[in-house]
Amino acid sequence: MGWKSKLCTVLLLLSVLLAVNASLDYTEKDPELKQCKDQCRHQRSFDQQQRQHCEQRCDDYIKQKRKQEKQQREGGEGGTSFNKYDQEQQQQQQQQNPYLFEDEDFETEIETEQGRVQVLQKFTEKSNLLRGIENFRIGVLVTKPHSFIAPHHLDADCVLFVFQGRPTITMVRGEKRESHDLERGDILRVPAGTPVYMINRDENEKLIIVELLHPVSLPDHFEAFYEGGGEKPESFFKAFSREVVEAAFKTETDELEKLFRQQRQGRIVRASKQQIEKLSHPTRHGREGFWPFHGDEPSTPISTSSKTGPFNLFKKHPSQSNQHGRLFEADSDDFEQLKDLDLRVSFANITRGSMTALQFNSRSTKIAFVLDGEGFFEMACPHLASQESSQQQTSDRPRYQNVRGDLRRGAVFVVPAGHPLTTIASRKGNLQVICFEMNAKGNVKFPLAGKKNVVSQFEREAKELAFGVPVTEVDRIFNKQTGEFFLEGPNNQEQGRLWSVV
Amino acid sequence: MGWKSKLCTVLLLLSVLLAVNASLDYTEKDPELKQCKDQCRHQRSFDQQQRQHCEQRCDDYIKQKRKQEKQQREGGEGGTSFNKYDQEQQQQQQQQNPYLFEDEDFETEIETEQGRVQVLQKFTEKSNLLRGIENFRIGVLVTKPHSFIAPHHLDADCVLFVFQGRPTITMVRGEKRESHDLERGDILRVPAGTPVYMINRDENEKLIIVELLHPVSLPDHFEAFYEGGGEKPESFFKAFSREVVEAAFKTETDELEKLFRQQRQGRIVRASKQQIEKLSHPTRHGREGFWPFHGDEPSTPISTSSKTGPFNLFKKHPSQSNQHGRLFEADSDDFEQLKDLDLRVSFANITRGSMTALQFNSRSTKIAFVLDGEGFFEMACPHLASQESSQQQTSDRPRYQNVRGDLRRGAVFVVPAGHPLTTIASRKGNLQVICFEMNAKGNVKFPLAGKKNVVSQFEREAKELAFGVPVTEVDRIFNKQTGEFFLEGPNNQEQGRLWSVV
Amino acid sequence: MGWKSKLCTVLLLLSVLLAVNASLDYTEKDPELKQCKDQCRHQRSFDQQQRQHCEQRCDDYIKQKRKQEKQQREGGEGGTSFNKYDQEQQQQQQQQNPYLFEDEDFETEIETEQGRVQVLQKFTEKSNLLRGIENFRIGVLVTKPHSFIAPHHLDADCVLFVFQGRPTITMVRGEKRESHDLERGDILRVPAGTPVYMINRDENEKLIIVELLHPVSLPDHFEAFYEGGGEKPESFFKAFSREVVEAAFKTETDELEKLFRQQRQGRIVRASKQQIEKLSHPTRHGREGFWPFHGDEPSTPISTSSKTGPFNLFKKHPSQSNQHGRLFEADSDDFEQLKDLDLRVSFANITRGSMTALQFNSRSTKIAFVLDGEGFFEMACPHLASQESSQQQTSDRPRYQNVRGDLRRGAVFVVPAGHPLTTIASRKGNLQVICFEMNAKGNVKFPLAGKKNVVSQFEREAKELAFGVPVTEVDRIFNKQTGEFFLEGPNNQEQGRLWSVV
Repeated sequence: MGWKSKLCTVLLLLSVLLAVNASLDYTEKDPELKQCKDQCRHQRSFDQQQRQHCEQRCDDYIKQKRKQEKQQREGGEGGTSFNKYDQEQQQQQQQQNPYLFEDEDFETEIETEQGRVQVLQKFTEKSNLLRGIENFRIGVLVTKPHSFIAPHHLDADCVLFVFQGRPTITMVRGEKRESHDLERGDILRVPAGTPVYMINRDENEKLIIVELLHPVSLPDHFEAFYEGGGEKPESFFKAFSREVVEAAFKTETDELEKLFRQQRQGRIVRASKQQIEKLSHPTRHGREGFWPFHGDEPSTPISTSSKTGPFNLFKKHPSQSNQHGRLFEADSDDFEQLKDLDLRVSFANITRGSMTALQFNSRSTKIAFVLDGEGFFEMACPHLASQESSQQQTSDRPRYQNVRGDLRRGAVFVVPAGHPLTTIASRKGNLQVICFEMNAKGNVKFPLAGKKNVVSQFEREAKELAFGVPVTEVDRIFNKQTGEFFLEGPNNQEQGRLWSVV
Repeated sequence: MGWKSKLCTVLLLLSVLLAVNASLDYTEKDPELKQCKDQCRHQRSFDQQQRQHCEQRCDDYIKQKRKQEKQQREGGEGGTSFNKYDQEQQQQQQQQNPYLFEDEDFETEIETEQGRVQVLQKFTEKSNLLRGIENFRIGVLVTKPHSFIAPHHLDADCVLFVFQGRPTITMVRGEKRESHDLERGDILRVPAGTPVYMINRDENEKLIIVELLHPVSLPDHFEAFYEGGGEKPESFFKAFSREVVEAAFKTETDELEKLFRQQRQGRIVRASKQQIEKLSHPTRHGREGFWPFHGDEPSTPISTSSKTGPFNLFKKHPSQSNQHGRLFEADSDDFEQLKDLDLRVSFANITRGSMTALQFNSRSTKIAFVLDGEGFFEMACPHLASQESSQQQTSDRPRYQNVRGDLRRGAVFVVPAGHPLTTIASRKGNLQVICFEMNAKGNVKFPLAGKKNVVSQFEREAKELAFGVPVTEVDRIFNKQTGEFFLEGPNNQEQGRLWSVV
Repeated sequence: MGWKSKLCTVLLLLSVLLAVNASLDYTEKDPELKQCKDQCRHQRSFDQQQRQHCEQRCDDYIKQKRKQEKQQREGGEGGTSFNKYDQEQQQQQQQQNPYLFEDEDFETEIETEQGRVQVLQKFTEKSNLLRGIENFRIGVLVTKPHSFIAPHHLDADCVLFVFQGRPTITMVRGEKRESHDLERGDILRVPAGTPVYMINRDENEKLIIVELLHPVSLPDHFEAFYEGGGEKPESFFKAFSREVVEAAFKTETDELEKLFRQQRQGRIVRASKQQIEKLSHPTRHGREGFWPFHGDEPSTPISTSSKTGPFNLFKKHPSQSNQHGRLFEADSDDFEQLKDLDLRVSFANITRGSMTALQFNSRSTKIAFVLDGEGFFEMACPHLASQESSQQQTSDRPRYQNVRGDLRRGAVFVVPAGHPLTTIASRKGNLQVICFEMNAKGNVKFPLAGKKNVVSQFEREAKELAFGVPVTEVDRIFNKQTGEFFLEGPNNQEQGRLWSVV
C-alpha cells in the first residue's frame, strides 16, 4: 500500500495547484499533466514502481477531467444524452450514474487494419460502489471478414459470446490441440493461460465477440502474451537475453532475428481464402488424418471433448418468451464450464417498444452489454442515496434514487443484487442484451410487477399493514398487469419525471 | 481507488487546519465539519460520487473526534467504564481496545413508535486489525409486543437468533410463501434478496433478535429494499418514472399515488390482535386450506421444508455444562443453512461470578454479542503489541498485550483466531452471550487451563525445556485446576494489575 | 480505511520536508524519522491505533530509503549484483524488479544462540504487482544441532519443507498428541492454531526448514503465541491480570511467578542428548507404553494418522529427469493436506550450467526459494511495461520487459501465472529451488522451447500468419531443440544484452 499513501502527497500538491489555477484549460498537452508528473518524478521516497503508478494516476486524473468537462459542456447545451430530464435530474444523471458505461469508458488494446480489441475500464475506477465485481473485466473483439487473431495467451479466464460472424478458435491444451467452429449464440470458456488463435471464416460478415474476463494473477488486471510476431506484434520471446534464447533454441541469434523480424501487420491480420479454409473445420481434417500435409506433429492429436466445447444459447428452449421478448439462459447445469466462476449467461431480446417487468435478482450482480438496438434502463438504488449524507441515515426513510441510463449499441450497465430493474426497448427496434450474472448459485429472480409478483404473494394482513389501505386496493393494482417478464412498454418514452414526487 | 487518494488532499488541509486551530470545541454544527465539507465541494477533480465519499468521511471524522473527546473527558474524571485500572492502563484501554464495541458504535437504521433496528459500524472503521471480518456486519432488532415489520429484502445474507419474544417470519421463496413461528433460541437463515416480513405475536414480551449479516453486492455494506409503504416508509417503487410504473402496472399514476401515499407509520408498525392471529401459525392455516379467506392466490402454496426452517439451539444437548455455566453450539452438521457461510453459532450462559477457562480457537474468529448480564473479558493480543513499534520486532520478545473490556447488555466483542481468551461474569447475575464463529470448518477449541489444558499434554522434556524448571513444577500448577471449560471466577474482580509485572 | 487516508496527510508533510531538505544523510537516528513520527503524534484526529500505523509507516519509509541509497551507492560503483548489465538496464533492474527478494527483504523474528526464524516482508510492501499473493508469507527456520523450538501456535496455516537436518515435530490436536520424525524432503501441514514444538535430533547437521504461511485471522499478518516461557520468551499467560490467572489455575500469583520466571534462553534453546533421545521417535515409545516415565497423562494418547503425517517429495518418482536436472512435484492428489490451500509443492535440482526450458504456468503463481547454488532467472513481464506509461496502451505493441534476477542461497523470486520463465544454474554448482505454486487446480505447464513446445503445435497456416514467414522457417527453429524441460545452459553467462534489440 506504501505507494498509494505516498501518492496522496502528490495529488495534494496537484489539487492545491488546481485551487490556485482553476481556470486552466484542457489541451492535448495539459500543463496540469506535466506538473502532476513532475511532482511524481521529484518524490525522493518513490521507487520506479511507485513513480509509474503515480504518473499513471496523473493520466487517469486528466482523462477524468476531460470527460467531466465534456459532460459539463453537453449539460450546458441542454444535454444530448439526457435531454429527457429536467435540469436537476440531468446533473444527477451525469454525475451520479456509476452503473452505466459508454464508449469513452473503453480502452483500445489493439487496433489494426483488420480489427480491434477494446477493454472496459476497471469497475472500481468508475465507482467504489462496483468494488463487489472488481475482479471481472469486460472486453469486445471486432474483426473484418477473413481475419486472423495471432496466437497468444491471457493471464485471465475468459468466457466469450459470439454475437456475429463465424469464428474458428484453436486452443492448445497441454499436449493436445483443439479447434471449434463457432457460430452466433455460442458461449465458450477459454481457461487462463491457454494458447489460442482465431479466425473469422465468414467472407462477408464482421466478427463480434463479447468477453467476460477474470484475471488470475492480479485481481483486476490482465495482459496478453504473444507467442509469435515480429516487429508488430512484438513476441515475448524478444524479452529474453541473447545467451538465453540461443541456448533455449540451440540457434544462433541472427537466425532468430530473421524469424522474429518479418511480421509487421500487428495482432489481427488478413488471412487468404486458402488459409481460412485450412484453418476451418480442423476437426474434419483431423479425423481424415490430413495432418501430415499441415506440417503438424503426430504428437499433436486433436480433441473435441464436449466438456471443453462450446454451448449454443439459442439452441436451448427460451426460459421466457412472448410477443414482447425472449430470454435465453445458461448456467452451470447447462454448461459445466461456467461452474467454477459461479456464472450465468443470458441473452435478452426485447421487442421494440416493450419492456422487462420490474424485478430483481436475489444474489446475482449482473453485467449487461448492449449488442443492438436502443432504449434505457431504470433502477432503484438505495446505496447512492445513503452516501449522499450520513446525517440522514438515522431518519426513518431509505431514499431510493432513480438510476436511469440511455442504452445504445456498445453500452454496458451493471445491476447489483437486490436492485429492482426494468429495461425498455425504444420504438425504433429490438433491444438485444447479453448478460453475465455473478453468484449464480441459489439466485432467484423475483418479479415485482405482472404475474407472480412478490407483493401479490403477501398475506392479506401483510398487505394491509404494509400499505395502510384495504387489501382490495393493493390487489386491484398488483393483479391488474397479467403479463409476465416481458411486458408492453410505456406509450410515451419522452417523459422522465418521477410519478411519486408529482 | 481514485477518490480515496484524492480524499487525502482534503483530510490534509483539514488536519493542517486542526494543528492551527487545535482548541476548537465540538458543537452540533462543528465549524470543522463545515470547513471539511467545503474542501470536498471545491475539489474540481471530484465527481459527485467522490464528493459524497469525501463528505461522508468528514462526518466520520467529526463523529470519531466527538467520541474521543468524550473518552478524554471521562478519563479526566477518573473514568467510568475503566475505573478498575490505573491511569496508564486506562489510557491504553480507551485508545487501544479495537475489539470492543459499545452503544456509540451502533447506528440506528430504523426508529419508530413500535421498535428499532440498529447496525454495528463496519469493523474496519474501528480498526484495521478487524479487516479479516470486514465482510460481516452485526444488527439488532427490538420491537414492542404485537408489532409488524414491513415487507422488505436485503442485499445481504442474514443469520438471525431469537433471544426474546415470539416472532413469526414469512418469506417469499420463488413462487412459494413460507412462514415459521419462532421462539427463544431459534436460529434461522434468511437468504440474501428474500422478501420477508415479521410479527412479534407475543402480547407482553418485547422481541429481541440479533443478526449476523453478510452483504452480497458490496463486501461490507447492505441496504433494505421495501416493497410496500407510502409516505413512511418510502417504497422503492416510487423511484421509478411515471411512464415506467404506469406501463408496468397497467395503471394510471394517480391510482398508484393513492396506494403509495397512505402508510405513514414507518417500517415497524403496531398490528391488531386479529391481524396477529391471522399472521401466526400460517402453516396450520395452510394445511387446513383456509387460504381463500386470506385472500391468498392458489399460486402461492406453503412450504415448510425443514431445510429452510429454523433450528433451536436450546433443544440440542449442551456441549459444556456444569454449575458454572452452559454452552450450546450449532454448526453446519446440526444446521445445514450455516454451511456456505462456514459458520458456527454458540450461546454461552456463564453463571454469576464464574468464568470460562482460558482457551483459544484454532481457526475461528468469534464475534460475541452480550445479551444479558455484566462482566468483562480478557485477551492476550500480540498484534497490538507488534504495531506499537517495529523497531522491537527484531528483539526476541513477543509482547502480548492485555486487552480487557467491560461487558454489559448490548456490548459486542471480537476474538481473533489463536487469541487466548477468558470471559468473566460479574457477581450481579449470569452473563449471556451469543457468538458467531467464522471459519468453523476444522476449528478446534484449545483449553489453556483446567482439564485437558494444552500444556499438560506436552511431553516431560518439552515442559522442562519450555519453562526451564523441573517438570514437577510445571505439572503442579497446570494440573491443579480440575474444572473444565466453565470455572469458578475470581473472588476479587476489582483488581486489574497484571500479576506478571508485579 | 480511515487511518490510511489520514496517514497521507503526514506523508505529505514528510515529503514536502524532503523537497526542502533533500541532501539529508541517513544515520541510525535519522532526523527524518523523528520528524515523520512527530507528525504522527501531532495528528489530533488519530487514535492510538492510527498513530501506531502512522509511525510504522515512517519506519518503513526510512528502511526503504536506506535500501535505495545502498543500491544507488552500489550502482555508482558499477554494481555488485547487476554488473552483467549496461548502465541503463542496471538502473531498471535495481528499481524495477519487484519479483526478486534478497536478504534485506527478510525480517528476523527470532534470534538466539541456538537458531533463528526469518520472515519475508509482505509481498505488497515490495510491489502492488504482487497483491495477488498478499495472503501468503514465506518463513525460514535455521537451528543448530540438538536444538529445541519452544511450544507455540501461529494464527496461520503453515506448510513446511525440510531441506536439511532431522527434526521431530510434535503437535497437539484436540485431545491427542502427535509426533513425527521428519527428514530431508518431507512436507508437512501444520494447521492454524495447532500447538507445536520441535527438535533437531541431528547431532551434527543444522536444521533448515522453509515455510509457506497463510494467515487466518488477518489476511497478510500472523503472530506466534508461546504457551511456555519465562523472562525469555514471554508467555502469553503473562498478559492476563492477577485475579484472572489465580482463578484459572487455582494458584497464588507468587507461585505462578516462580514458574514463569525461570526460562531466559529464548524460543530456541539447546537440548541435552538425553532430552533429544526422549523427544525422538515418540511413536515407538508410545506403542511400547513408556509414557508413565514421561509424565504424560493417559488422557494423551498418540495418533500417527497418515492423513496428518508428512509426505516425502524425494520418495516420489521425479516428474522430469535428465542429465540437466530433476523435478519432484506433489499436489493434493499426492498429499491431501495441500488441497484446501490449492497448492503444489515442487523441488527443482538444476544441474550446474544447465537451464529450464522457457515455459509458463497457465494458472499458478509460483513462489520460489533458492535452497542452494547460484544462477539467475529471466522472465518476460508485460505488467511492468504497461505501467510505465498509459499513453502507449493504445499503440499496437505490448512491450514485454526483461526481468532478470541473480539467484543465490536464500533468494526468493515470484513468477506470476502466464509469465514465460527460464532459470539458469551457474557453472559453479547445482541450483536447488523449492517452489510453492498457488491455484494448482487445473494448472498446465506450457513449454515454449524444446520438445512439445507450444508453437510447434500450431497449424501450418497459423505459424505462417503469426510470423509472416514460410512455415519451414518457423519449424526449423522451433524443432531444433530436442531436449525437454531441463536443457543445456548458455555457454556464456556473462552476456546480458537483449538479442532482439541488437
